[in-house]
Parts: sequence; C-alpha cells; structure tokens
Amino acid sequence: MNGIREIKKTGSEIIDGALEAICALDKNAMELAQQRLDMLTKPKDSLGYLEEFAKRIAGITGEKSPTISSKTVFVFAGDHGIAAEGVSAFPAEVTPQMVLNFLAGGAGINVIARHVGATVKVVDIGVNADFDDAPGLLKKKVVRGTGNIAKGPAMTRQEAIDCIEVGIEIAREFSAPGAIFGTGEMGIGNTTPSAALVSVFTGLCPAEVTGRGTGIDDKSYARKVEAIEEALRVNTPDATDPMEVLAKVGGAEIAGIAGLIIGAASERVPVVVDGFISTAGALVASRLHPEVEQYLFASHSSVERGHRAALDAIGIRPFLDLNLRLGEGTGGALAISSIEAALKIFNEMATFGSAGVSEQE
Amino acid sequence: MNGIREIKKTGSEIIDGALEAICALDKNAMELAQQRLDMLTKPKDSLGYLEEFAKRIAGITGEKSPTISSKTVFVFAGDHGIAAEGVSAFPAEVTPQMVLNFLAGGAGINVIARHVGATVKVVDIGVNADFDDAPGLLKKKVVRGTGNIAKGPAMTRQEAIDCIEVGIEIAREFSAPGAIFGTGEMGIGNTTPSAALVSVFTGLCPAEVTGRGTGIDDKSYARKVEAIEEALRVNTPDATDPMEVLAKVGGAEIAGIAGLIIGAASERVPVVVDGFISTAGALVASRLHPEVEQYLFASHSSVERGHRAALDAIGIRPFLDLNLRLGEGTGGALAISSIEAALKIFNEMATFGSAGVSEQE
Repeated sequence: MNGIREIKKTGSEIIDGALEAICALDKNAMELAQQRLDMLTKPKDSLGYLEEFAKRIAGITGEKSPTISSKTVFVFAGDHGIAAEGVSAFPAEVTPQMVLNFLAGGAGINVIARHVGATVKVVDIGVNADFDDAPGLLKKKVVRGTGNIAKGPAMTRQEAIDCIEVGIEIAREFSAPGAIFGTGEMGIGNTTPSAALVSVFTGLCPAEVTGRGTGIDDKSYARKVEAIEEALRVNTPDATDPMEVLAKVGGAEIAGIAGLIIGAASERVPVVVDGFISTAGALVASRLHPEVEQYLFASHSSVERGHRAALDAIGIRPFLDLNLRLGEGTGGALAISSIEAALKIFNEMATFGSAGVSEQE
Repeated sequence: MNGIREIKKTGSEIIDGALEAICALDKNAMELAQQRLDMLTKPKDSLGYLEEFAKRIAGITGEKSPTISSKTVFVFAGDHGIAAEGVSAFPAEVTPQMVLNFLAGGAGINVIARHVGATVKVVDIGVNADFDDAPGLLKKKVVRGTGNIAKGPAMTRQEAIDCIEVGIEIAREFSAPGAIFGTGEMGIGNTTPSAALVSVFTGLCPAEVTGRGTGIDDKSYARKVEAIEEALRVNTPDATDPMEVLAKVGGAEIAGIAGLIIGAASERVPVVVDGFISTAGALVASRLHPEVEQYLFASHSSVERGHRAALDAIGIRPFLDLNLRLGEGTGGALAISSIEAALKIFNEMATFGSAGVSEQE
C-alpha cells in the first residue's frame, strides 16, 4: 500500500461516468460558510458538528445559503441465499412481508420519516417475491435473492454492476436542488454479507466484524461467523477489486446503496448513511472512489459489531448513540432532522452585528 | 457513605412539598408499554434507547399511549460575580444582550426550537439588568447577579431557596398532559459555578471538571481553575447539604433549573437536560431527591470537561454526540425531537399481527 487512493474502473459506462463526475467540495463556498458561521451570535465553533454539517453542505452543493427542500429515504430490499444457513432470527419470508409493511406505512422507518418530513421510497432490487405496483415502490429487481455465499458467489459481476446502476439511476431521478437522501435496507440475512464485505475491506477477521443482527443466540452466532469464514474461503474475493468483492460476498440492496451514494455524489447531493448494512454499501462506494466520504454523513453508532470499523474505514463519524439495530434507514432519518437544523442555524441565526451582542474579547 | 440515599429537607415548605410529591414511576404502565413494544414489527429491543424512552415516559405519565402535545425550553438567565475574575471569553454585558436576542428569536436556541416545534421561554432569574415586559419573558428576578464566589458566597441560603421556588412555580404553571420540558441557560461566567458544584458533589478536583466554557485561552483557563479552588477554600461548602452548596458556589439560573426539574418531577412531566450548566442544576436536584433522575433525559455529551462526570453522578446517559458547547438548551431541544419520535414509534408502528409479518423464530 503506497497510500495513494484512486478511482477504480468497473467496466460499466454508467458507473465509471458517475465516478468520474464526482468532484472535490467547493472550497470557496466552504470558506464563505465559515465566515458566516463565525458572525453568528455564539462562541466560535460552539455548535460543533452542526457547524461542520452546514459548512460541508455548502461545499457539496456550492450554495451560499444551502437549504433542504426534499428529504427521501430509499429502502433497498433484497433476499439472501445465506439465510438458508440459519444466520437470522427471522425467516426469509419476512423480507417481502416487510416491503408490504413499508408500503402500508406501518414500519419504524415510516413513522420516523413522517416525523422528520421525509418521504420513503422502497426499492425492490433483489427480493425473492413479486409485488403489485404501489405508490412508493420502485420496481428495479435485478435478482430474486442472491446465491448462498457460503457455497458460491452472491451474484455475477454483471448483476452487481446492474444493481449499482439501479442506485445511480435512482439518485439521478431524485436529485434536485435542496435534496438530501437517506439510505435504508431490508433483507433477512443481510448483516452476514455486510460483515463479509467489511471483513474483506478492513482486513479484520469475520469474528471481529460480525454481530447478532436481528438477535440470534450463541449457537446461530457461531454458525454465522463460520458461514462468513466459508464465504471468504470459497469465493476468495480480491480486496483490491471492489466490484468482485461485492459480486462474490455482497448483496443486491448493498450494491444498490453503493450506487445511490455514487450517483448522489456525482449530482452533488448529500447522503445520510444509516447502520451496518448501509455502511457496508458506503464502504463499497468509498473503495470505488476515494473522495466519496465527503458527501456522506454518518448517523448513528449501531449495536452491530463491525459498524465502527466500517465507519472508520470510510472516514465518517456518527453522532447518534441510541443503541439502534433495526436498519430500514431509521437512524439516518432521525439524523436528517439534525442536519436540517444545522442549515437552519446557518441561515436563520442573528449575527453579532444585527443583534447588538458584544463579540469575544 | 452507607449507600442509602434520602430526600433532603430544605426548610422551604414549597420545595419540601414538591420533593415529597415525587413518586416512583408507574411500573404497571411500563410493563404494558413493554408488551406493546414487543408486538411492533421490529426485532425485540432493536430500537434501543428509543424504546426505553417510550417506556419511561409511560412510567412517568402513567399513560397507556403517551404523546407529546407541548414542548417548552426554559432558558434561565443570570449573571455571575465570578465573571470579574476573567474566567470567560465574553464580557458580562453579553448576558442581557443575549436575553434580548432570545426574545427577538435570533439565537441558536430559537432556531432549533422552531425546528422541533418547541416554544422558548426566557426566565430572568438573576440578570444584572432590567428588561421591559416582552412576550416569552418570565420576569422572576431573585438576584441582580451573584456574589464573586472566589471571595464569598454566591447567594444567601434564602436566595437559593427563592430561585428553586421560581423553578418549581414555572414547572407547575406549564405542566399539562403531554408536556415535555427542556432546560437551557444563559449567564456569562456560569461554567465556573457549575464546575464548582460538580467538583463538590462528585469529589473530583476542580481541574478535573473545569473546561474552557465559551473558549478561553490557557492563561484564563488556569485562572478559572484557581478561582474555583479559591471558591471552595473560601466557602467550605458541605457536600451533604445541597442547599448550602448551591447558595455558596452556585448560581441563580442553576438553582432555577434545579427547581424546574423538581417541580416537573412532582407533576410527572419529563425533562430533557441540556449541557454542562443544566446538568449541574440537575445534579443539585438529584442530591435533593434520589429518584429525580427517572424523570430526566440527558441529551448530548458536551465538550465541557466535567459534563460526563456530572451525568454519571446523576445516572443519566446522553445520546447526541455533536461536540456542542453553546448551552441555551440547544442540545436538549434537538433531543426532544428524538424523544417525540420514540413516542410516535410506540403509538404508530404496526404490530406483527396487524401487518401480517412473521415473528422471531
């Protein structure tokens, strides 16, 4: 490792084009933002990361007075062949059942999204079931569940590319001035491929990055770690080829999230990353483009072992500590509200001059 | 120390009455809340502290389906004689200037409160200036600034009692079904008495609990620690007599916050505690009544050294990590929104039965 990080070509015109379109943040906009932040009636830097959020969104969007006008949480759903190995506390049928629950507005993410004024879009990218058309459902199925990674690859390389392209396409469709995206997911068994990806990209062994997902007992946990070890032995993914890693031991919804992030960054739209699975998707994106983390906001610190390692590998820092492990984008949706508060601080607070408040001595 | 904690009598009929009115949480309501939480379409306990928040508010209010219908942040303002020792980066005139900024809606707390749908009430409990009547201002002045604690007591015992009574009175006036309170403060120099209080109640030495407040340099910081050491030497506060500690090395707004918390707990209203100064006030309340922490929600982990020690001494845990050090109740206001989300989760999420989702195996 010489420390130089580079954009990885994938062979897909759409993906490579989006990766090349990702720019560095607008330093001028960030400098102007810092000047304004320092004029507001508060001790310098006293609003901590809220100030950093506002400054960074100025840099992402290039806007002098960035605001948020649309908030969308994308819940990517997919099934996993590895679920057959007994790595989850829930049966695989729960994936399509929860998709219907999202569409009916009854899941955790629906409640929190309503609370923060965000819209939920459910993306069927890999569920092993068929859905009727429904408001809020994006039908983008690439696979009907992945292969069992303990026995072979999750997907072909082309399927992984297709999944990332779906994410990019969605990002482009929903990008607009003032947009912010949240990532969410649903897929029984999906902490297993997530842990496999994090293990490959960080070099940590499976046991160090594997948690209990929806809440499995000691026996199932031991089996889960073993299954990931088998997946890495059988598939021998090459850590320097992120597309190969994703195809061999990843998942459709994880790839979709990676694509959404790449697409959003190429369109200069900020993305709030949710928990462990979303972060695994973000890690894939950051391995394809070294600067993608500048467009990302980490929301919460998950209970799931391995989440912190994945965040550190990307270089993002969560600010909510709520012991969450639900996924769906719930932590990200809560975080969007704090990021929106940061922009309101930036735009609405009085300055020392306007309020007649004496400055620091 | 035999580990037994008891209610401390203060000699004030109002305070002692409020302390005696504080009950344990409603265990039956909490059990019913847990049963409902376990029926919702999510892995058991997967919404972590959000579930705990909902359950605890059921216990606080005794309601089967608790909701939040009014959110109020009380910003207690007071001046401090210790400011003359050069312990702050801002001149004392900033206290009344910021009160006017709060009333005009231009401060950080105003922006965040609007964002989360909370009302701001400013309480002049100890500012060394006079204010005209204004909407949102509660004129409850007990002192015109405290004495310089490096040279003598901050207040008389009766003044400290009066300040706590003000807080109780306000809590009673604003308590209603569905109410939640946030604590905030403004007072140039007020991290100094807060550190003094935390030092006395935790037994940690001043340097261990003293931070840089609004942002002082090394020289002023050394002077601040020294001033607190002098305050403890000159006043010799008795840690087992919380009223004496508060009067000798506390502050009017800190006492008001302690009173608000006692009053709220006696009325079964939950209170979200903001940063270091608010937590010092909460620590006084918790030293007067051993069960008061059951009514409290810690919001953020402040940059201010000593905040964590104060939170630990009360037994509450923050969930926002935003590097804040502004005060005013800003972190608490943000946190109120997450607590509101917790209650919406509780009331609005579908159950396994209603959504047709298979349960944990």
